[in-house]
Amino acid sequence: MFDALLPTIHSPADIKRLSVEQLEQLAGEIRQAICDQVSKTGGHLAPNLGVVELSLALHYVFDFSYDRLLFDVGHQCYPHKLVTGRAPMLGKLRQEDGMAGFPEPRESGYDLFSVGHAGTAISTAVGVARGDQINGQTDRKTVALIGDSSIVNGLAMEGLNNAGTLKRQFLIVLNDNGMSIGQPQGALAHYFDKTRLSPTYKSVKERAHEMLKQIPGGSLIESVYHRLGEMTKAAIAHNHIYEHFGLLCVGPIDGHDIAGLIEMFAEVKDIDAPVLVHAKTVKGKGFDFSSADPTTFHSPKPFRVEGCRVEQITSGRSFTSAYSDALIDLMTRDEKVTAVTAGMPDGTGLAKVIPQFPERTFDVGIAESHATDMMAGMAKAGLKPFVTIYSTFTQRAFDQIFQEVSLQGLPVRFCMDRAGLVGGDGAVHHGFADTAMLRVFPNMVITAAMDEQTLRGALEFMRTYDAGPSSVRYPRDNVPTPAHDDKPAAFKLGKANLLEAGSDLAILAFGFPANHALKAREELASQGYSVAVYDARFAKPVDIELITELLEAGTPILTVEDHSIVGGFGAAAVEAAHAAGLDTRLITTIGLPDGWIYQGGRGAQLAKAGIDATGIARKVRAILDKNAHASGNASPAVNVDIHGTRVSR
Amino acid sequence: MFDALLPTIHSPADIKRLSVEQLEQLAGEIRQAICDQVSKTGGHLAPNLGVVELSLALHYVFDFSYDRLLFDVGHQCYPHKLVTGRAPMLGKLRQEDGMAGFPEPRESGYDLFSVGHAGTAISTAVGVARGDQINGQTDRKTVALIGDSSIVNGLAMEGLNNAGTLKRQFLIVLNDNGMSIGQPQGALAHYFDKTRLSPTYKSVKERAHEMLKQIPGGSLIESVYHRLGEMTKAAIAHNHIYEHFGLLCVGPIDGHDIAGLIEMFAEVKDIDAPVLVHAKTVKGKGFDFSSADPTTFHSPKPFRVEGCRVEQITSGRSFTSAYSDALIDLMTRDEKVTAVTAGMPDGTGLAKVIPQFPERTFDVGIAESHATDMMAGMAKAGLKPFVTIYSTFTQRAFDQIFQEVSLQGLPVRFCMDRAGLVGGDGAVHHGFADTAMLRVFPNMVITAAMDEQTLRGALEFMRTYDAGPSSVRYPRDNVPTPAHDDKPAAFKLGKANLLEAGSDLAILAFGFPANHALKAREELASQGYSVAVYDARFAKPVDIELITELLEAGTPILTVEDHSIVGGFGAAAVEAAHAAGLDTRLITTIGLPDGWIYQGGRGAQLAKAGIDATGIARKVRAILDKNAHASGNASPAVNVDIHGTRVSR
Repeated sequence: MFDALLPTIHSPADIKRLSVEQLEQLAGEIRQAICDQVSKTGGHLAPNLGVVELSLALHYVFDFSYDRLLFDVGHQCYPHKLVTGRAPMLGKLRQEDGMAGFPEPRESGYDLFSVGHAGTAISTAVGVARGDQINGQTDRKTVALIGDSSIVNGLAMEGLNNAGTLKRQFLIVLNDNGMSIGQPQGALAHYFDKTRLSPTYKSVKERAHEMLKQIPGGSLIESVYHRLGEMTKAAIAHNHIYEHFGLLCVGPIDGHDIAGLIEMFAEVKDIDAPVLVHAKTVKGKGFDFSSADPTTFHSPKPFRVEGCRVEQITSGRSFTSAYSDALIDLMTRDEKVTAVTAGMPDGTGLAKVIPQFPERTFDVGIAESHATDMMAGMAKAGLKPFVTIYSTFTQRAFDQIFQEVSLQGLPVRFCMDRAGLVGGDGAVHHGFADTAMLRVFPNMVITAAMDEQTLRGALEFMRTYDAGPSSVRYPRDNVPTPAHDDKPAAFKLGKANLLEAGSDLAILAFGFPANHALKAREELASQGYSVAVYDARFAKPVDIELITELLEAGTPILTVEDHSIVGGFGAAAVEAAHAAGLDTRLITTIGLPDGWIYQGGRGAQLAKAGIDATGIARKVRAILDKNAHASGNASPAVNVDIHGTRVSR
Repeated sequence: MFDALLPTIHSPADIKRLSVEQLEQLAGEIRQAICDQVSKTGGHLAPNLGVVELSLALHYVFDFSYDRLLFDVGHQCYPHKLVTGRAPMLGKLRQEDGMAGFPEPRESGYDLFSVGHAGTAISTAVGVARGDQINGQTDRKTVALIGDSSIVNGLAMEGLNNAGTLKRQFLIVLNDNGMSIGQPQGALAHYFDKTRLSPTYKSVKERAHEMLKQIPGGSLIESVYHRLGEMTKAAIAHNHIYEHFGLLCVGPIDGHDIAGLIEMFAEVKDIDAPVLVHAKTVKGKGFDFSSADPTTFHSPKPFRVEGCRVEQITSGRSFTSAYSDALIDLMTRDEKVTAVTAGMPDGTGLAKVIPQFPERTFDVGIAESHATDMMAGMAKAGLKPFVTIYSTFTQRAFDQIFQEVSLQGLPVRFCMDRAGLVGGDGAVHHGFADTAMLRVFPNMVITAAMDEQTLRGALEFMRTYDAGPSSVRYPRDNVPTPAHDDKPAAFKLGKANLLEAGSDLAILAFGFPANHALKAREELASQGYSVAVYDARFAKPVDIELITELLEAGTPILTVEDHSIVGGFGAAAVEAAHAAGLDTRLITTIGLPDGWIYQGGRGAQLAKAGIDATGIARKVRAILDKNAHASGNASPAVNVDIHGTRVSR
């Protein structure tokens, strides 16, 4: 047996001392460490298993304490983190104060951007590369590592188009595992499928001299050819799509052949032109269960490996599952309903729907802007399209929702999973901005679901609502067991739903936090407070009748939402009350703070934001106790008359 | 002389009766009519002159009363409008109740989407095509017309990737004028440059049979080859970039050869596969002045043609010019300052800056997402990047501003021209949402400029502000003559600036409307009202100290902004006052309504929204008169105490 190498790697400098055989051993140790950890805590597994050799080879050849390494999406950064001094943090993967699941500059200078959204690496790398050049640091190399599913994202293609104009070293490593997150989508995926692996390491060398004759005059290849190494020369891809973008393309090469990768990177490192190295990898490489089913093991929950059987430890029924079933129901009843996912069939629950309705469901790959516009086109054709994208990724379609949907008045339906706090994925994935984002569009209807029944209610409302766009948000959480068996009232435009009555204060909770509000109400009842709880349901239009009624009756209102306190449901309530000439001082709003919340447990995050049951109850007591104090003593509330004199009630 | 044909064209059916010679005559008449009109009212000239033959040929071959025609950007829709029954509306081009400058479904069923943002046509067309198929209308043809500057936009490339998977007729016409709006940018532009025109109409036929031998087995070409006409066969483009996207590519062909275009479109019309026809056109075709200088005549102001001299009728100094000069000043003083435009060097004023600082200025083409990320990368490299994009196009970068800028805390500066109402461009171009959009990001600083001096003040503030991202908005308007010579106070984070004192009410105006507020103040003063006017300057952080002081003194506040009333500066003021426990009933907010404002004069639009001097004065009188009435009589204002009993003051 060999001694373990991973414990000896404290920085990338330690890698450079290893032999190829040792690097291969290290790759195995890294795989095992990642798999052990993810099986315990969940996390991204298959993507990281696929890039171990690529990560080691890049760190072996470049010096990223000075050179620039940019990750796309970033859920394949674990091997990189393990060799940049963060192995000791792995035990708290994706936990508060532990190792983030995405690159995180707060953890290490080796991480340049915290990224969880796809397609950004080339564009930011172009900026860093141009910036270093302006700063006179022309010797600083730039490398962008991007997957085949990301590189077809619009942002990535814009980045490629601009990268092709660079007159300096710029390396794009295309990690082509042919898998994306689910199955590859789009014509380019088929293109990648057709590309064949170049003969490996040794045999490519033999081909080198033959290639020279085939190079057309005046090309980028010709201009840099004399500086290329033998291996690169042999691996030059002719008629590669990215040649048209002005890149020198080499490969595809074997992305698990450490020796070959090291030689290739060493050869292309000093080319003063944009180069793309196309590496084929196996997603989930290293374990039979993960390479055989990389989609399931893309980002699994904790799991157990028992012999050749792997069991994912799941608990409860997720909103995602509830959405799947509700959508199947809608599509069964209404043949006009269509649905799209942007490369996330599993995450959004569409994976279950697609086989049942292959003609009316679409996976367009990681292309949220296109997904939205495609569905706008379908609405134009008279269909009832449901756009199923995580809240955070819906941000990619802001302008399409404006122009192609809202301005046209088209009834496109947005179903936003992962709205609110998302736990371990952290700040790059929270759905904190969807309501604020959508509320500025004049005709947008914005709803939220608190449980499976209201999710079905919202979707049924949206199915029949044809006057313009509509949306529903629901969290990365399990659907709660309903408090009682009664079917909730049907959704009615702009109407909240009373869940439990009470006289001292009314909680208007937008979506899932209504469940916390109900729990808080029980606690408060035992303490002598009588609190009404409403499922607010609509943030646009907000239920101004209810708000007016409550405020005119002097009932304090507490709004609760799993969304930024800026511009969200509470803000909508305050703005509406203000516009109606009401005294907004009786309204208190709680939600996510105007700041960042990093990775941790979703429960802990909710508690920190003060929107779990405990936080809500605490806030209610603070309001009522202050008011009671105020009414029992000299009032601290101050009114002003129009002449500017202070008057106290 | 021939009789004029244009007056006889009431619908596309009238075109189908014309001979090729008559179509050529009609093309000339359309060019003259457009040029005459644009010289009087301004509008998009060169783009429309370039697509006359393409438009006529498409209408000749297809029946767009049933088939689907989708425009990209849409500023090349005038010829299409003139032959779809809207010639009588041309006299009121871009005016209220006249002909919109962009496709407009409210005008005609021949327009499917109102579009002014680039890159949408392919994506929406894919949706319409799939929708028609689901509806069983498989005979409905789909055509997307897109320019070479739009097709490299990320959204368009996402659309292409998906279009390549279609198993039905789908025609993309690439209008390649090699010009974009300004100069073409990016590697693909060079690619297009290199493509050579296919031999014209007749000679291509001769090449047809030779091509067959060269076609690789199993390709899309092979599968549809037997259905291709002779001309298409001859014009098939081998190794065209979009072949990799799964499209059958033909051309480039001459986009002004009506006969050739008609034959080509007739041949490809029935191919059950996605086809791209690459047509080369001359932007500004038909007049020497416009074809020689298509950038200037892309969207000119009114102009006079005198002999061989063309004079644009301009008036006053625009904010855009002021921005150019201010940026040049910044870049002269600070070598860390860099700037980017996304394909709009003229519109944003960067055209003047680029020649002076070629190393630190960038035009990335119509790629706002990439532009933002590239500048995030530059900020990471320690530079001071200024992103110069129209307010409405900044919407394209919402998610990049979130993840790559705000979440990283990077000091990227956003300079948003055309903020507020834009006049003739109408609803597709108003900058109505920027403040709402940016305000949800925790560390975003949001400012606005009211004149040239404050624009300089804001930019200088932003240059030195390194704690996070910042932004400034300014309108499509001329800079006003300063009210007095005093240099305004320097910008201080979160601080408003008192312009004129007053005691009855305080106007807090965000940006340009402060000028209207000053005028309103004069009018009001003559009527006996004493009004203070503040240049609010910051929407985030809002000047809560000032608001607190005013409200505690009982001074009514009127907020004014050239932005949606939802989520903008006024909403920020109300939210901040509410959060501070203040009575928001003393605050009145005016701004753009939560609805759409269509094309017209900017002055008339401002008046309609009630945010010109007259509207502001009217609102102030209404507030003060009501308050005076209220204090002189029984108060209509109702307070409620915490026990729910109504109490009147």
